[in-house]
Amino acid sequence: MTDPIFHVIADGPRPVAPFSHAVEQGGWILLTGQMPTDPAAPDAPLPEGIAAQTRRVMDNLEVVLKSLGLDLSHVLQCRCYLTAFDRHFAEFNAAYQSYFPADRRPARTTIGVTALAVGALVEIDCVAKRPDKAG
Amino acid sequence: MTDPIFHVIADGPRPVAPFSHAVEQGGWILLTGQMPTDPAAPDAPLPEGIAAQTRRVMDNLEVVLKSLGLDLSHVLQCRCYLTAFDRHFAEFNAAYQSYFPADRRPARTTIGVTALAVGALVEIDCVAKRPDKAG
Amino acid sequence: MTDPIFHVIADGPRPVAPFSHAVEQGGWILLTGQMPTDPAAPDAPLPEGIAAQTRRVMDNLEVVLKSLGLDLSHVLQCRCYLTAFDRHFAEFNAAYQSYFPADRRPARTTIGVTALAVGALVEIDCVAKRPDKAG
Repeated sequence: MTDPIFHVIADGPRPVAPFSHAVEQGGWILLTGQMPTDPAAPDAPLPEGIAAQTRRVMDNLEVVLKSLGLDLSHVLQCRCYLTAFDRHFAEFNAAYQSYFPADRRPARTTIGVTALAVGALVEIDCVAKRPDKAG
Repeated sequence: MTDPIFHVIADGPRPVAPFSHAVEQGGWILLTGQMPTDPAAPDAPLPEGIAAQTRRVMDNLEVVLKSLGLDLSHVLQCRCYLTAFDRHFAEFNAAYQSYFPADRRPARTTIGVTALAVGALVEIDCVAKRPDKAG
Repeated sequence: MTDPIFHVIADGPRPVAPFSHAVEQGGWILLTGQMPTDPAAPDAPLPEGIAAQTRRVMDNLEVVLKSLGLDLSHVLQCRCYLTAFDRHFAEFNAAYQSYFPADRRPARTTIGVTALAVGALVEIDCVAKRPDKAG
């Protein structure tokens, strides 16, 4: 448990920059912000609209978590970035909230940004924690 | 200590989106970004000006922390978001710094954003740590 | 290990706002976002261009880490903020990635922001972890 683990997932979402998909130490996992790209077709056009892009981002976070033996129930916090905040906030929330039970919602911060990689409308990063036994 | 605790505070600041007020695990607390809304009158207009909104945000963070038996002295880091960075940065800092002793200032990052929920001028989220005995 | 340590580094990069350079608890270190200022000449003009500013920011993070007996190999996550995302992203990545071995890249999120302190083009904050023995 002394050293950080730099998780790079062979069949994960294609990195858009020099980063690991997630880094883990002492059971804490810091996940790189995910984009709405398709791991199976990273050069394909992005899904259309904020709802579809939000679902793809969440699905990509799940891909990363799953490769670590985890899932969204281990996520404690999300930071969400929207390039058209006022236009997309409501629809983003509707898509986002379907991924979490109402009594286990991560802490969250959502802000409007000027731009994201690959021209995405939304990016989300998160903090997860491995259950203590496995930590 | 194995499971995360999803803190939702009955009389806390009204959530503007699907999130818990704070999520805790192993004594670490990740607080959702707070808005300058009034917990007692969430539909009232926001306070006018960056100084008043900053104070309200800090007060709301204190409400959340207090409900967990904590206070601002347990905050290790703040991330601050301003919708009019150049215009408000100095006044924001003046209001913000009154909440922390000069020798116990949290790590901090402050950035300019395009928009925040409820049309706020400022949002702040933070990381706190419960003293180890109580962790 | 019970209390947070608020690190303020006497000869470190000059704080542009009321914050500590880093705050530490239980071996986790939360670093304040660093600016591209010169610790030895904080009033000098910023370096020109995104590559030079990125290198200065990374160098400043190293100054802070070094004063804690750490270095970039202890960094688990970076959050990066660019004021001209589309124009600078590629060049930023090139400068950034020279600081990390390809198999030990921190998790990362990079977003476009409207403004940063001191008119900087780039700011980076990070999370580091002290090796367990020393934690």
